[in-house]
Amino acid sequence: MKIDRFFQLFVVKEKKFFPLYIELSKNILAGANRLVDLTMEQDEIKRLEIARAIKACERDGDKTMATILEELYKTFVTPFDREDVHQLASRMDSFLDFINDSAKKISIYQPTCIDEAMVQMAKLIEKDAELLVEAVSQFEELNKRADAISDLCKRIGDIEHEGDDLYEDYMSHLFTQEKNAIEVIKKKNIIQSLEDTTDHAKSVAEVIRTIIVKQA
Amino acid sequence: MKIDRFFQLFVVKEKKFFPLYIELSKNILAGANRLVDLTMEQDEIKRLEIARAIKACERDGDKTMATILEELYKTFVTPFDREDVHQLASRMDSFLDFINDSAKKISIYQPTCIDEAMVQMAKLIEKDAELLVEAVSQFEELNKRADAISDLCKRIGDIEHEGDDLYEDYMSHLFTQEKNAIEVIKKKNIIQSLEDTTDHAKSVAEVIRTIIVKQA
Amino acid sequence: MKIDRFFQLFVVKEKKFFPLYIELSKNILAGANRLVDLTMEQDEIKRLEIARAIKACERDGDKTMATILEELYKTFVTPFDREDVHQLASRMDSFLDFINDSAKKISIYQPTCIDEAMVQMAKLIEKDAELLVEAVSQFEELNKRADAISDLCKRIGDIEHEGDDLYEDYMSHLFTQEKNAIEVIKKKNIIQSLEDTTDHAKSVAEVIRTIIVKQA
Repeated sequence: MKIDRFFQLFVVKEKKFFPLYIELSKNILAGANRLVDLTMEQDEIKRLEIARAIKACERDGDKTMATILEELYKTFVTPFDREDVHQLASRMDSFLDFINDSAKKISIYQPTCIDEAMVQMAKLIEKDAELLVEAVSQFEELNKRADAISDLCKRIGDIEHEGDDLYEDYMSHLFTQEKNAIEVIKKKNIIQSLEDTTDHAKSVAEVIRTIIVKQA
Repeated sequence: MKIDRFFQLFVVKEKKFFPLYIELSKNILAGANRLVDLTMEQDEIKRLEIARAIKACERDGDKTMATILEELYKTFVTPFDREDVHQLASRMDSFLDFINDSAKKISIYQPTCIDEAMVQMAKLIEKDAELLVEAVSQFEELNKRADAISDLCKRIGDIEHEGDDLYEDYMSHLFTQEKNAIEVIKKKNIIQSLEDTTDHAKSVAEVIRTIIVKQA
Repeated sequence: MKIDRFFQLFVVKEKKFFPLYIELSKNILAGANRLVDLTMEQDEIKRLEIARAIKACERDGDKTMATILEELYKTFVTPFDREDVHQLASRMDSFLDFINDSAKKISIYQPTCIDEAMVQMAKLIEKDAELLVEAVSQFEELNKRADAISDLCKRIGDIEHEGDDLYEDYMSHLFTQEKNAIEVIKKKNIIQSLEDTTDHAKSVAEVIRTIIVKQA
């Protein structure tokens, strides 16, 4: 009986992690949703409000991350490799930091207009976040769902390629069309920050794939 | 008796690490002190001299880092997790690289003037280095001093937020006030490099906190 | 006899890794060769072709990297520390990404001319890649060849210093001579990307040195 309780405790402890990852992925999605709003908002004052809301999402993510780390050091048995549990949480947390950085760049630079390519890039980031929520929600059945999760990760990788092309086309356009150098700097930095975010989303997907390969 | 000597050897080996970390933190502080000097120096020639002195600090740090790595691979038992000993040293070493990079940026770009925000940012970096020396000096009594060290780390985190605000205000100001695009590029890159340094200081503090959590 | 076969299997498995590292280092060298070609090509159309060839090298590298990861998780005993096998492959893969990024920057920005410093920097990257092929080719006899490999790594470190000086001189020159701000942005980003590549090559050499120290 004692042994039973012991194993039960194990299982309980393991399962603590899954809802935390789901929570963190939802913090990310909330930030990404607002990032799309931000790129479509023309009003300066409203933009500042949205940027503040994104900052709040990022702080929520920090809290979830702190809870994951606490659980990690309290828990003897983790659902995956301890190192991977840590790295996945840490990269998910950074994904939200990248979203917040992109929002900050828009607030700081206040470009004369937000070009269509920026809206498109924000939508790619939102798609990444949606796929991540979907992947993470299936973690509890990782072995059964390995193929489905792997496929979601692959789609996040594809989005990064799409973002790459969008970025290159936009930059070529920017450097040939925009004659105001200060405007070039502003827009270059905004699109760069958005594109870095899609790169980082891919690196989150890569950690998930590593976990799947190890469990297989 | 043999056993006693064996344990004594252990303790001796463990204790080797602490002075090396203190040395590395002092290399960092020496660099940070000179970085403040650099931002307050108007004379071009004297600035080059200070930049060279910072480069020398960075090389000292490289040597201390090399000694830590050597000790690490020679020592079977380390005071903390082997991985953490490595990562802490590596991030402290990078902190000094960031300081040196900031100094190099100032030397390379030679902006027409060094704005007050840059001096303030260098002072935040110096404060970070002072707090780090203080934290690292208490490592030998980590368990007893966990709260005090944790508090110092928290203050390094707070400085990063301060640096963030300073950076954002300065950038908004720069992009609305400065009309010379080349001057904008120079100043943007200098303040960015300084702000990256405070970000990195925070990441050093985070490793220390991880070590504390694990030891608790 | 069973035991013998068992150990034979071990040895076979171990040896699988060496040719894969050599292959990856040759993917890198192929990319680096073409990067030098790119910086010396004046014709826009031909430049695009070369950039596409570099992209193909990078994809080859991705495939080799994927094979290494697969082998890694299938193999119980690895020639070095599992973590190091992973990190070395991952940094080599990133080295090729940096080469490809540099090529992309040249394609995107299309500067009015490619300055001599850029050609020189590309040649440093090519030299790095040659030294890396040489180092990796001796991995199978790591213990016997430790000094020779260590020396090759040291030379990669020296190249990074050379790249540093080249970068600083060029930047000082660029910011005092070039009056067209948009051209400054373009050239600054290209040389930066090339210099980042030599930095990264050094970080590959550092992983190799860590492996050597651990094996000693």
